[in-house]
Amino acid sequence: MIETVSSNRAFGGTQGVYRHASAVTGTDMTFSVYVPPHAEGARLPVVWYLSGLTCTHANVTEKGEFRAACAELGLIFVAPDTSPRGEGVPDDPAGAYDFGLGAGFYVDATEEPFARHYRMRSYIAEELPALIAEHFPGDMTRQSIMGHSMGGHGALTLGLSHPDRFRAVSAFAPIVAPSQVPWGEKALGGYLGADRAAWRRHDAVALIEDGARAPALLVDQGGADQFLAEQLRPDLLEKACADAGIPLTLRVQPGYDHSYYFVSSFMADHLRWHAARLG
Amino acid sequence: MIETVSSNRAFGGTQGVYRHASAVTGTDMTFSVYVPPHAEGARLPVVWYLSGLTCTHANVTEKGEFRAACAELGLIFVAPDTSPRGEGVPDDPAGAYDFGLGAGFYVDATEEPFARHYRMRSYIAEELPALIAEHFPGDMTRQSIMGHSMGGHGALTLGLSHPDRFRAVSAFAPIVAPSQVPWGEKALGGYLGADRAAWRRHDAVALIEDGARAPALLVDQGGADQFLAEQLRPDLLEKACADAGIPLTLRVQPGYDHSYYFVSSFMADHLRWHAARLG
Repeated sequence: MIETVSSNRAFGGTQGVYRHASAVTGTDMTFSVYVPPHAEGARLPVVWYLSGLTCTHANVTEKGEFRAACAELGLIFVAPDTSPRGEGVPDDPAGAYDFGLGAGFYVDATEEPFARHYRMRSYIAEELPALIAEHFPGDMTRQSIMGHSMGGHGALTLGLSHPDRFRAVSAFAPIVAPSQVPWGEKALGGYLGADRAAWRRHDAVALIEDGARAPALLVDQGGADQFLAEQLRPDLLEKACADAGIPLTLRVQPGYDHSYYFVSSFMADHLRWHAARLG
Repeated sequence: MIETVSSNRAFGGTQGVYRHASAVTGTDMTFSVYVPPHAEGARLPVVWYLSGLTCTHANVTEKGEFRAACAELGLIFVAPDTSPRGEGVPDDPAGAYDFGLGAGFYVDATEEPFARHYRMRSYIAEELPALIAEHFPGDMTRQSIMGHSMGGHGALTLGLSHPDRFRAVSAFAPIVAPSQVPWGEKALGGYLGADRAAWRRHDAVALIEDGARAPALLVDQGGADQFLAEQLRPDLLEKACADAGIPLTLRVQPGYDHSYYFVSSFMADHLRWHAARLG
């Protein structure tokens, strides 16, 4: 059962925000879905958008500028939250922005006290798709996934783990190798523990090194992104893809930063790339 | 002198937010300007966007989805604040959203205690254009104006008052006859006093009745807008334009509400209409 938080007509379709009690996270979860104009009874491809640190569904819903392209291309656009929230959900002990609330990193935590609620991997990969299939006119045989920053990490790792499910995978300024950068070391260590072997299936570069494949990847990266050199490291993805023979289109966009001004500038381009692969 | 609050690359151009000490309002004022990609030395048409009740420059800057079209069409997009703000600026006595802070109604107040700071008409019509001309590559012989709700009122009244300056005038869900609706009666009474004769130059319908003309007007109105019947009354504008022979394109868009989901859905369309008239 899902509750409608808000519903607004936009670009001929409907932008909705919904809430439900998640069995997986043990909390209420909020997400947004844009359904473009479509013929009665039609089933439409579903694009998943995973957001970055500190975000909820609202950031991309308000600032992502995806609706015009989704309306034109006939795509459903789903934007989940980035972590469980609510009473009893543990946060970063120091309240930092890069762990805990708003920073679920799309893993199922195994470490206490996070293991009960921080199960964003299963939430995104299993529980939410079932809800989308039940309540929206999605054609679940035609799904693709994209994301920004931490959500780019989520899109890449989920896409590489489910090549049968996601026909296209793209990212804006993704964290490509969390095991090798400070944000990722903190998050994967905190949620999964000290054994780095357990981190590899949540690290796009490690997944590729271990044999995971994707038909093609599209990545845009701002050239003036303050996190580029320390946290994002697209060079590591470039090398892994080259070694593995995965076609990667990596575009460094001069002058662009890490914000939604960057994401929105290339959103329509990504959606066209997805639509071409979603048939 | 203006201070740069933020500057972000977007759609090949620059989205900036700026602050300056306004002589007109006697306060610091913040505004945003999008400058699209352009050839060195080029001067570009300037589109003014006036915002609605409770808004600052930020609402349209984040949610308006104007940058793709401005980049394509080569338009500078200027979004001022909706009132003076800061220490010593009087607000609505009861703190209501529809008067005082965030609700300047684009008039120069004559009533105390508002007359000193609430001078949004002169600010928008005189002081800010001079700053734009000085600091940005605007061709001030090619200006147009648009706005939303209270800002639609501002765009219509300023456009009708300066047909020499604004080559195109359009609005999303505008207050067309403030003298005849609760929002307007409160605001014009509060800022201008009880003499309704002084209200007429700040009322689009009254301006037209009194002889003001515009070459053409474009208005989009959401059919499911909760404020339509009581506050917006596009029927009054329709009648005034018909009587005066002003070509008005009034489109009631079924299902759309008063939000930025509505504004953004038709923003590109308005900008194309403006660009066609800006040469």
